[in-house]
Amino acid sequence: MPTEPLTDGAPRTSPPRWLTEEEQRAWRAYIRLAQLLMRQLDRDLHPFGLSMHDYEILVELSEAPGTRMRMTELADRTAQSRSRLSHQVSRMEAKGLVGREECEGDRRGTFAVLTATGADAISQVAPFHVASVRDHFIDQLTPAELTNLAGACAPILDKLRVTRDKD
Amino acid sequence: MPTEPLTDGAPRTSPPRWLTEEEQRAWRAYIRLAQLLMRQLDRDLHPFGLSMHDYEILVELSEAPGTRMRMTELADRTAQSRSRLSHQVSRMEAKGLVGREECEGDRRGTFAVLTATGADAISQVAPFHVASVRDHFIDQLTPAELTNLAGACAPILDKLRVTRDKD
Repeated sequence: MPTEPLTDGAPRTSPPRWLTEEEQRAWRAYIRLAQLLMRQLDRDLHPFGLSMHDYEILVELSEAPGTRMRMTELADRTAQSRSRLSHQVSRMEAKGLVGREECEGDRRGTFAVLTATGADAISQVAPFHVASVRDHFIDQLTPAELTNLAGACAPILDKLRVTRDKD
Repeated sequence: MPTEPLTDGAPRTSPPRWLTEEEQRAWRAYIRLAQLLMRQLDRDLHPFGLSMHDYEILVELSEAPGTRMRMTELADRTAQSRSRLSHQVSRMEAKGLVGREECEGDRRGTFAVLTATGADAISQVAPFHVASVRDHFIDQLTPAELTNLAGACAPILDKLRVTRDKD
């Protein structure tokens, strides 16, 4: 039974704190929006041969000094685990969008580097992606709602990053 | 060039409306939270052999009259395209969690039905999943923040559902 002590962690004997009706309503609205929005943005990028994950990495690299970034920092900025990012970058390398460079004399590891193909891709796709983000998200909210949303996200995000880094 | 007229749609000659700094900040906070939260909840379900998508479908069916629902309605409630849901249900069928039933004399199609195995899975996993949702999301927000968040999600979600249904 899952409510008895686990062998690999603290005993879980307290009764579950089920969500209240209001919490349930908010949670379901949030999670459905998150899923549907991600699918829509991915679909809008599909004609350009990119996914949302590809796009996010291209943006980070294009804005970084020398259009390159340590893999560890890139993982942190894109809120991905190290291993998931490594697979992602391998797929993008195969498409010629990014490269990897070992940094001699720097033991802190590998850099991801934007290629000329990657730079072309981002400048071609950006106007379409920003229109998609505006259409499905930004322009649906008032400026005050946007600010509140960003404020509400920040502490949740900080905590999730700590959780991930422990893994 | 992507800013010139497209052959398959309306001409796009107006300059892109780039995001303001505040919009950019809000957007990045939102999208990172969405991605990281989904990965964390998926990871917390992993020891039980379920994904977030599996879990969501089990919940919908367990709460439906007769623990069964038309595939079209299930797609709508879980904000998925018909074809994506069909693949998802096939994978869950292979694990014995759900079944499919054709409804004789009802041309509106197939039902998804919760199996005994699916019902056991949801009742075993629910206490852990609710703890995970509380820990990473609900308990990080005040009740007022939660209410505002749900209110902000609703119109965006409505619009995204209309967009999806047109495809």
